[in-house]
Amino acid sequence: MVHTHVQDVDTAARAAAAAAPEFAALPLTRRAGLLRAVAAELRAESAAIIAAADEESHLGVPRLTGELERTCVQLELFADAVQAGAFLEAIIDHADPAAKPAPRPDLRRMLAPLGPVAVFAASNFPLAFSVAGGDTASALAAGCPVVVKAHPGHPRTSELVASILARVLPTGVFGIVYGFEAGPALVQHPAIKAVGFTGSLAGGRALFDLASARPEPIPFYGELGSLNPAVVTPAAIAERGQEIAEGFIGSFTMGSGQFCTKPGLLFLPEGHGLTFDLTAVTTGQLLTENIEKGYAAGVTDLAAAPGVRQLAGPAPALFTAPAAALTGPLLEECFGPASVIVEYASPAELLSVLGTLPGSLTGTVHTGADDDVAPQVLPVLAGLAGRVLVNGWPTGVAVTAAQQHGGPWPSATTSMYTSVGETAIRRFLRPVAYQNVPDALLPEALQESNPLGIPRRVS
Amino acid sequence: MVHTHVQDVDTAARAAAAAAPEFAALPLTRRAGLLRAVAAELRAESAAIIAAADEESHLGVPRLTGELERTCVQLELFADAVQAGAFLEAIIDHADPAAKPAPRPDLRRMLAPLGPVAVFAASNFPLAFSVAGGDTASALAAGCPVVVKAHPGHPRTSELVASILARVLPTGVFGIVYGFEAGPALVQHPAIKAVGFTGSLAGGRALFDLASARPEPIPFYGELGSLNPAVVTPAAIAERGQEIAEGFIGSFTMGSGQFCTKPGLLFLPEGHGLTFDLTAVTTGQLLTENIEKGYAAGVTDLAAAPGVRQLAGPAPALFTAPAAALTGPLLEECFGPASVIVEYASPAELLSVLGTLPGSLTGTVHTGADDDVAPQVLPVLAGLAGRVLVNGWPTGVAVTAAQQHGGPWPSATTSMYTSVGETAIRRFLRPVAYQNVPDALLPEALQESNPLGIPRRVS
Repeated sequence: MVHTHVQDVDTAARAAAAAAPEFAALPLTRRAGLLRAVAAELRAESAAIIAAADEESHLGVPRLTGELERTCVQLELFADAVQAGAFLEAIIDHADPAAKPAPRPDLRRMLAPLGPVAVFAASNFPLAFSVAGGDTASALAAGCPVVVKAHPGHPRTSELVASILARVLPTGVFGIVYGFEAGPALVQHPAIKAVGFTGSLAGGRALFDLASARPEPIPFYGELGSLNPAVVTPAAIAERGQEIAEGFIGSFTMGSGQFCTKPGLLFLPEGHGLTFDLTAVTTGQLLTENIEKGYAAGVTDLAAAPGVRQLAGPAPALFTAPAAALTGPLLEECFGPASVIVEYASPAELLSVLGTLPGSLTGTVHTGADDDVAPQVLPVLAGLAGRVLVNGWPTGVAVTAAQQHGGPWPSATTSMYTSVGETAIRRFLRPVAYQNVPDALLPEALQESNPLGIPRRVS
Repeated sequence: MVHTHVQDVDTAARAAAAAAPEFAALPLTRRAGLLRAVAAELRAESAAIIAAADEESHLGVPRLTGELERTCVQLELFADAVQAGAFLEAIIDHADPAAKPAPRPDLRRMLAPLGPVAVFAASNFPLAFSVAGGDTASALAAGCPVVVKAHPGHPRTSELVASILARVLPTGVFGIVYGFEAGPALVQHPAIKAVGFTGSLAGGRALFDLASARPEPIPFYGELGSLNPAVVTPAAIAERGQEIAEGFIGSFTMGSGQFCTKPGLLFLPEGHGLTFDLTAVTTGQLLTENIEKGYAAGVTDLAAAPGVRQLAGPAPALFTAPAAALTGPLLEECFGPASVIVEYASPAELLSVLGTLPGSLTGTVHTGADDDVAPQVLPVLAGLAGRVLVNGWPTGVAVTAAQQHGGPWPSATTSMYTSVGETAIRRFLRPVAYQNVPDALLPEALQESNPLGIPRRVS
């Protein structure tokens, strides 16, 4: 249906580069208006988009209806942020001829867009993390044109959404390319100045390596794989163990386990006495044939791992193992409705094992009254994850200013940014300082009278 | 005198990793106090430090006296920033059960230290960009232990300063390693979580490649090489051409041209009629034998480049060439007291040639009355540099909040951060979000009552 040539990548990337200066220079209100217009058009065409996405992803109309709304709300959140202007991080240091050890010039700093951004769409959110998803919305909010590499799992949905973006945005500001070979070509194209990616560890690493090896290396923001450990303390078991067991089942099987925040490891004290009844839980067809294959292989590996006992499966699949067995496939994400219960003999063993886990998007602790374990667990989780939760489940990622979706490697290629929430814009910006520049030559955001009325730090 | 073994790197990196959690958890006032204590000790031992630095660098006592004070002021600036707490970028989103499309949990975000940082000291600022320089100060301010790779150009100065840091800071928080082979080992050590580097393009690229190829890639902040183009418009020539010529000579020969912000290209309109009298300008011995060799080779390459005419040399060296000849060695930094005058035939040619320049730390324009060229030049310079100046010279980098020292490749490995000024701290931090975490388990910075009294964004 859709044919790809490396030539398309070049065309899209050059068009983005040509459009970049004018798009960067648009008034913030106009940039915000464009984001809102995309949201409005997505809502107007929601029926067709949701129908296509459901057919291609098997995720169901209710979920996709919510996801489309989330996509629109995301665009509107970024529009609000653009208009508010705090994301520019404007700082004004007035001249100080008396400063020690040397007189200070007038210096004014703001953030400026990096240039065209490549966005690799995710399979598991065909709307919210795909063509008009968070990466695209935050790059556009930053003032960067976007070229999306469509995910092969939902090409029709991608085209529908892409046609809206292409129609609403100025020429060249949005482009889309299809096909496996378009990916490396896009990452290596000299006009591309940053990459947003959601996908597998292997695929993400390969593209990260290309981005880093360019003659001019560029930032690569990859969200790769995450175990999302959840710890239940003895105090929590005593208080509401069975309720936690049920919450866990709901969380790791939700959406057929196809969330990057699925709890893949549940730490329970030995002798917890909880039961995990999965007989009534059914999971749907997975997103793509590749994901089905990967899931089957992952479940086979887990079942064969030393010390591991299978409690249910193949879908949903649940395993249990002592903390001492936590190596090999138990430390790799199995994408889909599978999880592993890890039993710890003592708080000391728990803390020691948590210290060996790879980086995660999230870390959770369930605590109870007079709990002396949770206060020790929480800082360890904060050391290995981007978001820590108490008495909750990590699936479900609020799109707010304080959100952090991105943790230490391998959950993300860099832990320094989020791909969800308002501060995601910062990924596509660089500071520029203006020294002794007359008001008439300054960008409006830095002019003395603050004509945009944005928040600025002034000394 | 100083012997290096890769074993030393391992020892220092492990000690840093062991010290990291406790150092990160120190109260901000204590962290700030340590930075101030380092500054106080540097001042107390300034005579010995300056004497050693002068002997090793040939930069002279007046310059080094100023540089030591700058180093102390830098440490104190970061101490102030740590205590003020704005650098934590705390954001608090209170729970909102009525939020659409989904209820919102309580989410609180702050920045947390990345872990041990490797710092590669620079040759050209044996104090301010070396052992206790900006990279070290900003990493410590972020709450990260530091292992410095000493520059071979000033080993005794390095040891004197290192002994102060080791004495003042908690055990393991500061380490230093010597010798060429220590560099790659440090960048590849699993305990190291980020790198700050100031040096050559070739050396920086090699270490950046190692950092990116690690099993767990880490951020590498390299300040490499920069041409720092300065443009003089016809209006500026008409107004004060000869004054500009003299300012240019002062800027590119200052400190024997050994500044990363040295103007390496001066764009003048054809027929500018200016004279550049270098007969009275003497420059000193360069920092190291390697730099002397590199300078000699660079001057030879420039003299031999097609279309280039030599006006003075070998030190200081001045060349001139038409804009059409701006290729090859003219687009590479020649570290030392050399610069190239580039003559443009028209504003159109000027803008077109500026568009082909590599990224720079700075870009300058000299403007005059009723100038229609400068307003076109300024945005082009802002597109290729981290700092743009009007009617000034880029040498001299104010240490303030609005400073930006870092531009597009190859002036820096990433243009997204500064290595000078308060926001340099952000390079060594990552966000952590706390979801529905009870007050008693939250870091103080995020507790509801704001016990630290830091600025926070609360919704």
